[in-house]
Amino acid sequence: MTADAINQVLEAQHPALFRSLSALGRRTFYPQGIPYQAGQARGTTYNSTIGIYTDGHGGSVPLPSMAGAVNLPPDEMDRAFLYSPVQGIEVVRQAWRQWQRREVDEVLPSTVPVATIGLAHGLSLMADLFTDEGTVVAVPGPFWGNYRQTFGLRRGAELRSAPSHVNGVYDPQVVEKALGELPAGEPAVAILNFPSNPGGYSPTVKERQELVASLLRIAEQRPLIVVCDDAYQGFVFVEGVPRRSLFWDLIGQHPQLVPVKIDGATKEFSFFGGRVGFVTFGLQMEPEAASALEDKLKCLLRSTIGSPVALGQMILYQALKDGKAQDEVAMIHRQAEERFQVIQPALRALDPSLLRPLPFNAGFFALLEIPAELGIDADAVRRHLIAQYDTGVISVGPRFLRLAICSVAADALVELVRRVEQGVRDLAASP
Amino acid sequence: MTADAINQVLEAQHPALFRSLSALGRRTFYPQGIPYQAGQARGTTYNSTIGIYTDGHGGSVPLPSMAGAVNLPPDEMDRAFLYSPVQGIEVVRQAWRQWQRREVDEVLPSTVPVATIGLAHGLSLMADLFTDEGTVVAVPGPFWGNYRQTFGLRRGAELRSAPSHVNGVYDPQVVEKALGELPAGEPAVAILNFPSNPGGYSPTVKERQELVASLLRIAEQRPLIVVCDDAYQGFVFVEGVPRRSLFWDLIGQHPQLVPVKIDGATKEFSFFGGRVGFVTFGLQMEPEAASALEDKLKCLLRSTIGSPVALGQMILYQALKDGKAQDEVAMIHRQAEERFQVIQPALRALDPSLLRPLPFNAGFFALLEIPAELGIDADAVRRHLIAQYDTGVISVGPRFLRLAICSVAADALVELVRRVEQGVRDLAASP
Repeated sequence: MTADAINQVLEAQHPALFRSLSALGRRTFYPQGIPYQAGQARGTTYNSTIGIYTDGHGGSVPLPSMAGAVNLPPDEMDRAFLYSPVQGIEVVRQAWRQWQRREVDEVLPSTVPVATIGLAHGLSLMADLFTDEGTVVAVPGPFWGNYRQTFGLRRGAELRSAPSHVNGVYDPQVVEKALGELPAGEPAVAILNFPSNPGGYSPTVKERQELVASLLRIAEQRPLIVVCDDAYQGFVFVEGVPRRSLFWDLIGQHPQLVPVKIDGATKEFSFFGGRVGFVTFGLQMEPEAASALEDKLKCLLRSTIGSPVALGQMILYQALKDGKAQDEVAMIHRQAEERFQVIQPALRALDPSLLRPLPFNAGFFALLEIPAELGIDADAVRRHLIAQYDTGVISVGPRFLRLAICSVAADALVELVRRVEQGVRDLAASP
Repeated sequence: MTADAINQVLEAQHPALFRSLSALGRRTFYPQGIPYQAGQARGTTYNSTIGIYTDGHGGSVPLPSMAGAVNLPPDEMDRAFLYSPVQGIEVVRQAWRQWQRREVDEVLPSTVPVATIGLAHGLSLMADLFTDEGTVVAVPGPFWGNYRQTFGLRRGAELRSAPSHVNGVYDPQVVEKALGELPAGEPAVAILNFPSNPGGYSPTVKERQELVASLLRIAEQRPLIVVCDDAYQGFVFVEGVPRRSLFWDLIGQHPQLVPVKIDGATKEFSFFGGRVGFVTFGLQMEPEAASALEDKLKCLLRSTIGSPVALGQMILYQALKDGKAQDEVAMIHRQAEERFQVIQPALRALDPSLLRPLPFNAGFFALLEIPAELGIDADAVRRHLIAQYDTGVISVGPRFLRLAICSVAADALVELVRRVEQGVRDLAASP
């Protein structure tokens, strides 16, 4: 279908989504090019449509040295070495959907996930689809710096932030505050990342309720795309804090609120090198509208990366297909939780005149604030820690240090915290 | 370094490249974010910089079911499951460089290849870097339709085409003709794809010389980025037609001509599902300028896809590392050539009043022209072949049919050609 035709479908059936599309988002459609024509010819005996080198009967022809490094049943081997469909391999999309919805009520609608190159690519697709020069994107701070490149530098969107925590307490109105005085009616995007990077925080039940209420107040005023960056989905270490994505709490809540889930195997399945992510919309869509939206994503996918990683999808499928995922992922969660339990007392013991940990209950990171009154630059501490203490941390803005608990062994965490504190003490003492 | 700082380096040392940068290309720089800071902390004992879940000592923690499907030495296993550096894994970049340069004179300079998500992503990076709304991109026709999405629909560039073949003979002035009356001084991009898709053609020695001369005439007038889309590199079936990329013929020829090589494992190593491509510049660059340009690519990479596929790079490395690639790739070339030898007589025997094959000496495809006087639409033939002859081909524009020789067994090729001819005959006969 042409851009006009799919735009009409979306405008009629999902006006808030349609009004939020960028100029690029409106232009996109899936042209009747090679993948489209190849799709129509699928199953023909003399199929000479697609530019894949095959054995002549649809089978892959991997180089022996490369095939030897991949250990899959023959049919899955072919899928791993041949092109993935642009939207992802169907069995993998369905298996991921099942995984996403393992604790979700059947009545909540969600689209079939579209495969991306890890989560960064899902975010970049959302930036393409929903932001133009000057589109306002609300991002609670501190936030992952790459949002700035993906939405700001590339697309010219205007990132507006407000602090996630005020006096050490999560602020459920952070998105309203970040949006500020944006005129009513103007579409906006909000990015919500739980468990958060660099914050290491996931809201409690009550905070979530207040957050949802706040988002609904915004949706009364304007179309609102809520991008749930679920990279660290499941890594929650404190009893009573919900594990499941905020995405599910937003579905069907307001006609002007469009929930989007960006997730994938990178962190959830400890598969950093595979580059398998997904984009899912929390909308009840008729087949025609779902296909219109998927066509737009496919156009963006094809024009940026051709097709997603078939090999990564098929490796991920090994964990998904026999229901092994739950236990294997739980094993990683337990290990991560052990590190959490070890570092907690060390964080609590920090001298608050030097470092103040923000509430840390989830994810990969602990975030430490350097008190403003010390007048010390976080990046100076970072460089000092490398030079003097054989210790690497990330500086976030002028006053935060991020510690990646995920990449440090449990028995080294206490010493890590001690060294970071000592580094701050050194700089606090020197004029 | 900031955008201003790296722009100054490029403007001083590579003015034609600098003048060709898009507005986005000028804005890009590699921020001192997490990968940058993690790079500085590499080697520290207490390294808590990067958000990768590890065993605490830098090792990967893959899920057992997924690890079981990948068969690599422990160290390479870690690299496959952890993040790749944004620019690619160093040993793979160097090994690919060696592969690219295996028949190339040492004196010809080329940058260290930067890893991409297959070749489409390399093209998309070039569109980001060098095209704005209205930038003229010359593309000999018929061409791969996705150029239109990548350069036109996404970036708003103006694609200008001219026929690659005139009266069945390759036209080495096709780029000059495509550019038309573009005012002198205005930068332009040209995409050259040999062996071509959908053309199945690679120029002879003489045609290459004339093509290079033509490109140099253009470079006298304006900065010219020549993007060599080398997807089908090496698949050349006729003695005397050069196999090596045109890219090497362009290096150092003119200060206003910037050769770029887009290549990768997809077709060259029959690794369609792995998504491993590379971008290489054919410039003599001082370290500072090379790093400035690489920073721009890294910014674009990180903001679109986070990082390239580590798993695919490490699988590709299996073929590259012990020098097995040459023999294994040659085995595929021989098989492809066998198909070429089988289909040649069938193409020659076609009734020229129904179908006229364009010169076919290379690549994955044979391109057949439906004579204009028949007044038949190529897409109508395509649909007729699916419906009546159990046969799939691709229609290209109103009068071309593309046959993918690469995906049909040798013993089916003659029958394929017979059916396609019969399909055209049917429609030619019906009013």
